[in-house]
Amino acid sequence: MKIIQGGVCAATGFKANGVHCGIRKNHSKKDLALIVSEVPASAASVYTTNLVKGAPLTVTKNNIADGKAQAIICNSGNANTCNANGVEIANAMCDLVARATGVKATDVVVASTGVIGQPLNLEPIANGMDALVAGLSTQGGEAAAEGIMTTDTVMKEIAVEFTAGGKVCRIGGIAKGSGMIHPNMATMLVFITTDCAISPKMLQKALSGDISNTFNMVSVDGDTSTNDMVTVLANGLAGNEEITAEGEDFTAFMAALNTVTVDLCRKIAGDGEGATKLLECRVTGGKDERNAKIVAKSVICSSLLKAAMFGADANWGRVLCAIGYSGADVDVNKVAVSFESKAGRIDVCVNGAGIPFSEEVAKQVLLEHEIDILISLGDGDASATSWGCDLTYDYVKINGDYRT
Amino acid sequence: MKIIQGGVCAATGFKANGVHCGIRKNHSKKDLALIVSEVPASAASVYTTNLVKGAPLTVTKNNIADGKAQAIICNSGNANTCNANGVEIANAMCDLVARATGVKATDVVVASTGVIGQPLNLEPIANGMDALVAGLSTQGGEAAAEGIMTTDTVMKEIAVEFTAGGKVCRIGGIAKGSGMIHPNMATMLVFITTDCAISPKMLQKALSGDISNTFNMVSVDGDTSTNDMVTVLANGLAGNEEITAEGEDFTAFMAALNTVTVDLCRKIAGDGEGATKLLECRVTGGKDERNAKIVAKSVICSSLLKAAMFGADANWGRVLCAIGYSGADVDVNKVAVSFESKAGRIDVCVNGAGIPFSEEVAKQVLLEHEIDILISLGDGDASATSWGCDLTYDYVKINGDYRT
Repeated sequence: MKIIQGGVCAATGFKANGVHCGIRKNHSKKDLALIVSEVPASAASVYTTNLVKGAPLTVTKNNIADGKAQAIICNSGNANTCNANGVEIANAMCDLVARATGVKATDVVVASTGVIGQPLNLEPIANGMDALVAGLSTQGGEAAAEGIMTTDTVMKEIAVEFTAGGKVCRIGGIAKGSGMIHPNMATMLVFITTDCAISPKMLQKALSGDISNTFNMVSVDGDTSTNDMVTVLANGLAGNEEITAEGEDFTAFMAALNTVTVDLCRKIAGDGEGATKLLECRVTGGKDERNAKIVAKSVICSSLLKAAMFGADANWGRVLCAIGYSGADVDVNKVAVSFESKAGRIDVCVNGAGIPFSEEVAKQVLLEHEIDILISLGDGDASATSWGCDLTYDYVKINGDYRT
Repeated sequence: MKIIQGGVCAATGFKANGVHCGIRKNHSKKDLALIVSEVPASAASVYTTNLVKGAPLTVTKNNIADGKAQAIICNSGNANTCNANGVEIANAMCDLVARATGVKATDVVVASTGVIGQPLNLEPIANGMDALVAGLSTQGGEAAAEGIMTTDTVMKEIAVEFTAGGKVCRIGGIAKGSGMIHPNMATMLVFITTDCAISPKMLQKALSGDISNTFNMVSVDGDTSTNDMVTVLANGLAGNEEITAEGEDFTAFMAALNTVTVDLCRKIAGDGEGATKLLECRVTGGKDERNAKIVAKSVICSSLLKAAMFGADANWGRVLCAIGYSGADVDVNKVAVSFESKAGRIDVCVNGAGIPFSEEVAKQVLLEHEIDILISLGDGDASATSWGCDLTYDYVKINGDYRT
């Protein structure tokens, strides 16, 4: 497996583009993205668990119920959620794509991100569609990645090459998040494309299996958006024998998918609103996976720990505290905690109690931009990893001041 | 029922004091508090649910296992938690109180708050005990309230007078929290005293019943401390017939206790670290109390909503979002949201969708220091209230910078 260029256009048969159509006021910000496959593709998707669900999710669910899709349309600037006419507008977006590309409207995945509770005006999308489609290109991955950005400060894309059934396959993705959206929520959108041939059922299985260890282990502020969605299209143009069951090829596909999703998780967490640090919490020695995950999530979500990481403070007590209230079945007297970064590693807690350590070395470790929080539960073989970021002044500024 | 002066000394037969003994470096900060009853009292306590528990909690649990206690000793500056000799030190604190006051060591409630994982030095406590006991007075409630403060910016006390069994009774309390403690955690300590005669069993029943609607509904940042504790002493000196069962007197006692605890909850929430606003979330129309509570807690804990309140932004979408991911059984299409303060009330969401409202009026409402978030679930008769505060730059500063 190797990392390659191209994002969502790395796989054979995918074109993409992103334009500014006028949903967002800032003309320098793209606000509409389109990804199209040459041929209909297997499609799989996972959605937010929030009871408040964006209208685009309803339409997408319906459109990919047959396991097939051929295009993804996504706007930023308005989430098309909590509006009376949301489903109608989302369907109309699919119709616009169908008319301009020839893809069937029911083969279009639709997503929106931005303000909720304000009707989404279809006009700029209709007006922008021609330019969007005219510009579709195999070089358009970056433009599409930009089109779905909101408060994101960096464009997020990745692609890898792998082998399945003796054929070279490619899988790539773009993501937005988890900056909160003007004026709402940490919407996370991820679109992944691959030319690997895989049945819709196995594609869904791969995706559902993967996200419990990846996107579901990312937290910027604990809030779950109404519009979160991860979609994969697999158009089969790599020419491998279609993966229809578990086995070597499926394992290879899962590994490639996981490389893409972990990379996007790290990019999302590291670009959390106001974040100055990417935090990775690696829990080992758990009684079982469930308990290891509960611990990893609880620690990465602790506001106190996040603020301590911002201050480069080796405050292991906050790690222990977050383990203690996590609800996980752990023996706190067996817990060990270390902090690690490219500047080194420092052990700070063993058997649930502090050990002497150099504050100076700890500071050096924690002043880096990527910090690993290592937790050993001493209770078994299960492990889990979570990703997050520090809590900073800018988080408060972005989320407190944006309408003032 | 009427509010009276005196805090923990309002009830007959209680004396208190607070001094600086040297645990904290700042000489102007009191760090040791003592409350003593003339006679042994019924005692009840509730403790943190964090698996990591402070040593003082272990000792207190043991000492009040017989339902009786006569004194409360509490230091700030060190939580005496995650230390090898914690229980030994906590017991030694009780012994020091016993020697200086004549109260039995096993009738002493002991509490500590502050840094965890650093041994608590007994010497300053031993040295300060004489002055602490010499200064015990019925006017000492404020001094005791100051002695338990850490990052609290205001002293927290309250007392009320009520009638039970035809006798005038008094109940008062002091609290610290929920500023995080140097360097750890939102320890919440609450000590309540009353001269009402009530059996240990009924006292525990009253306290356990009350806290599920009061202290358990307060959130500053979602972190739960290792040392949280609420203790009530009831010495019976009001002369009423001892309350030993449910009935009119018990109801009167519960109401008085609730007045004290709600007041302290509001003071704790309003003094959350860095807070500029007290938030009260009142949920009505819930299917049942459990669901109403889940909604109230989820909304008050949302970092996004807390930041919006700091920015005086009527961002009802964040309220809806937090309801949606709360896990409560609600129909989001029936939800209504309003914001209220002494500047007025503004309705912003009806039937799960936004309604037009004046941003100007909303700003006026939200620029006040006490904001009520009113949520109607339209699904039944159950209600719940939670308390919290806004998320501010100063929260990040206090928790990110304190060791630098």
